[in-house]
Amino acid sequence: MLTGDAVRWGAAVDRAYDCDAYTVDRSAPAAVVLPSTEQEVQAVVRWCVASRVPFTPRGAGTGLSGGAMPALGGVVISTKRLNRILEVDLPNQRLHAEAGVTNSALSKAVAHAGLHFAPDPSSQTVSTLGGNIAENSGGPHTLKYGVTAPHILTVRVVSPNGEMQEFGRRVVGGPGPAWERLVVGSEGLLGVVVSAWVHLTPVPKAVQTVLVALPTIRAASDAVASVIASGIVPAALEMMDRNILMALKVAFGLEFPADTAALLLLECDGEPKQVEEDFARMLAILKGFAPLELRVASDEAERKSLWTARKKGIGAMGRLAPTIVTHDGVIPPSTLPDMLEFVYAVAAREGIGVANLFHAGDGNLHPCFYFDDRDPKQVESVVRAGEEIMRKCLELGGSLTGEHGIGVEKVGLMHAMFGPEDMALQRRVKELFNPDTLCNPCKLIPDQKGCVEHMVRWRGVAT
Amino acid sequence: MLTGDAVRWGAAVDRAYDCDAYTVDRSAPAAVVLPSTEQEVQAVVRWCVASRVPFTPRGAGTGLSGGAMPALGGVVISTKRLNRILEVDLPNQRLHAEAGVTNSALSKAVAHAGLHFAPDPSSQTVSTLGGNIAENSGGPHTLKYGVTAPHILTVRVVSPNGEMQEFGRRVVGGPGPAWERLVVGSEGLLGVVVSAWVHLTPVPKAVQTVLVALPTIRAASDAVASVIASGIVPAALEMMDRNILMALKVAFGLEFPADTAALLLLECDGEPKQVEEDFARMLAILKGFAPLELRVASDEAERKSLWTARKKGIGAMGRLAPTIVTHDGVIPPSTLPDMLEFVYAVAAREGIGVANLFHAGDGNLHPCFYFDDRDPKQVESVVRAGEEIMRKCLELGGSLTGEHGIGVEKVGLMHAMFGPEDMALQRRVKELFNPDTLCNPCKLIPDQKGCVEHMVRWRGVAT
Repeated sequence: MLTGDAVRWGAAVDRAYDCDAYTVDRSAPAAVVLPSTEQEVQAVVRWCVASRVPFTPRGAGTGLSGGAMPALGGVVISTKRLNRILEVDLPNQRLHAEAGVTNSALSKAVAHAGLHFAPDPSSQTVSTLGGNIAENSGGPHTLKYGVTAPHILTVRVVSPNGEMQEFGRRVVGGPGPAWERLVVGSEGLLGVVVSAWVHLTPVPKAVQTVLVALPTIRAASDAVASVIASGIVPAALEMMDRNILMALKVAFGLEFPADTAALLLLECDGEPKQVEEDFARMLAILKGFAPLELRVASDEAERKSLWTARKKGIGAMGRLAPTIVTHDGVIPPSTLPDMLEFVYAVAAREGIGVANLFHAGDGNLHPCFYFDDRDPKQVESVVRAGEEIMRKCLELGGSLTGEHGIGVEKVGLMHAMFGPEDMALQRRVKELFNPDTLCNPCKLIPDQKGCVEHMVRWRGVAT
Repeated sequence: MLTGDAVRWGAAVDRAYDCDAYTVDRSAPAAVVLPSTEQEVQAVVRWCVASRVPFTPRGAGTGLSGGAMPALGGVVISTKRLNRILEVDLPNQRLHAEAGVTNSALSKAVAHAGLHFAPDPSSQTVSTLGGNIAENSGGPHTLKYGVTAPHILTVRVVSPNGEMQEFGRRVVGGPGPAWERLVVGSEGLLGVVVSAWVHLTPVPKAVQTVLVALPTIRAASDAVASVIASGIVPAALEMMDRNILMALKVAFGLEFPADTAALLLLECDGEPKQVEEDFARMLAILKGFAPLELRVASDEAERKSLWTARKKGIGAMGRLAPTIVTHDGVIPPSTLPDMLEFVYAVAAREGIGVANLFHAGDGNLHPCFYFDDRDPKQVESVVRAGEEIMRKCLELGGSLTGEHGIGVEKVGLMHAMFGPEDMALQRRVKELFNPDTLCNPCKLIPDQKGCVEHMVRWRGVAT
């Protein structure tokens, strides 16, 4: 059944599948398979289990922490051909789709009914439902609509031992815990997602967007806190700092007032009158922080142009230095000003560049280091600075990841967030499902068998 | 440390703690303990584990499926004295409280800041945070705000083997699955909840409420479907049928148009303009279904009086017959008309009375049978009818419980909802935490050791 171009290997495969968007850690698979049905996925998993070959599920490979990288080689199971929408149930606002359907395709399938799949990772035109589930992906509208998890009703997986398992329910309520939440965010450790029922959300009828230039980071942070405290729930509340603006100017010629220290992008969506009211209140709050400029989008074209700053920010960074590394930490939103000061101080001490572009509303930071990775000293500085910033997030009561996952990238820091009992519990649950860790080894849970060697090879450190 | 009135036993204790609000199944504890600190809870659990004595956590005892009933005797651990609010963090809209704090007290503690704890079970003035977490309680505003689960950030428990464990994070995002969701809804099987960080929600600034009398169940169901399909998310969307209205008339003299077959209570809340807009649209939709009457609350007093019909409905049923049994099943909302017809047909065939009062917006049914439990034939009919209705919920793609839990009440039906592999998986996770089932035995997971005897004794059936 899995024949012809559904099984591939060789040098081209090695290059295409040896990493995901976290490119600093690589490992080539023995082969990649592209099953077209859940039965084919099951057959592959069963073959791997019988042959003791590690296997790694992969959606579009847009992950930022190495979750789809075959750390111990073996078989990459691509879900690209599991691309069917199986059932659309408009009266109950839900949809059943295979894992390889792209995030955008889910929304397109129900656009005629005024519905969409709310999670909107920046990678949404290519990233897949299965990948979004595994990584519990977020996006700029997470503040109002949540990450992927609350939009998932059921998840169907081929378990690490080759059984079909379905988690969750298609309706609200019990019985028992929300089992599907074990799979969402488990980074492929509990099996290969083959399909899911997702909840659909009405497309907001009105949207209003404003871009605000503020003279200090403190003013921007305080403005964020004031908006949140007012009870308004913006659809998006993004912050970009001065270095992002400089990159945008160099790369795309975007201009901002000279004294801008931080730019805020705020968006309200929903029913027209509600949006009008919220937006007016929000503008009044923002005006209290002496903005240097306040650009309101008057139509959809202008709205898209305001979003350009946010969406092209990371791309623009590429012009500043040969290499960029984006981190993903979370802090309680009230600690934002202190945290940003810390980020700048660490970068200054290490002598590397840092820019910040992030989801300010829910405290999900993305410090972005720019440097030259041909200089081993700079690489060392970036690794050290990244770790220091993550530890500061934890010290402030935050977390190691908001939306990019742990993968291989931060698996060595898990012990800094979780005590030995917590780690033991997580490991025991993982082992209940995936006892031999053939399924996506070396991710999320530290100290897995055979993984120290991989880490030493790629990082020169035993994590 | 646990001395004096913190340890109690004897006939009065037997009567007070041998059941919760599910009164048809009883079992007396050997003793009840009332610890005042988490260390005392831990000491009690460790003593129970060392002595092989079963123990059952208990909040206010308002549960409707027997979750707090000590099925195999042993020790009841009451959380009543764990009643401190430990920390209020207004800037980050969260609060840390002990398990015995009542649902209402959480909201009162932050009312001055315009915030509240959104889940609102009818029992909220007495039911506790720990109980709400264990049962994943819902309420009339679940449609818009969700059940308890989405409002819980972390849960701290004394595990079934006597360890302190904390699940979840105080900020958004990862790493890994939402571990706290394993505890929420686990009905006390994964340990004794001692405290939790909860998310706070702004109190809506405006509320509009309407009570609509409709001539047929079909018209009411269709009106519900039309409101949901319009994209409006009402804060509440409740339905009461003709038999509830008759009971309300007998009990409280409430009057409704003579030909009313169903009453809908709809509420919009939020910012004033948004509420005005949503509410106007909703009224226009409702008018399309030829309502017999449409009462809009013009102030808070009138609003409370409209809610009387909903809140006193179950109480009023007590006037119709010596005994009432309320069921709790979920169906996809679009199947509502068919399901209600089925409920009436089953009741008619069995010759028992049934009234329906429920959360129509999310398909959470509460068929309420009224009968005389001194007549064994009627009891048999009610049991048979209840089971038939639950099986119909499953047939329609629904679930055994929306907000009351499985407890002992429906543990025998779990096999009808979950296949052997699913059940095995749930049991394995349970056993990972609670291997000897000393912690709250006989609940949620069927076929536990020693529990068949309890079931036979209380029900006359081996489940």
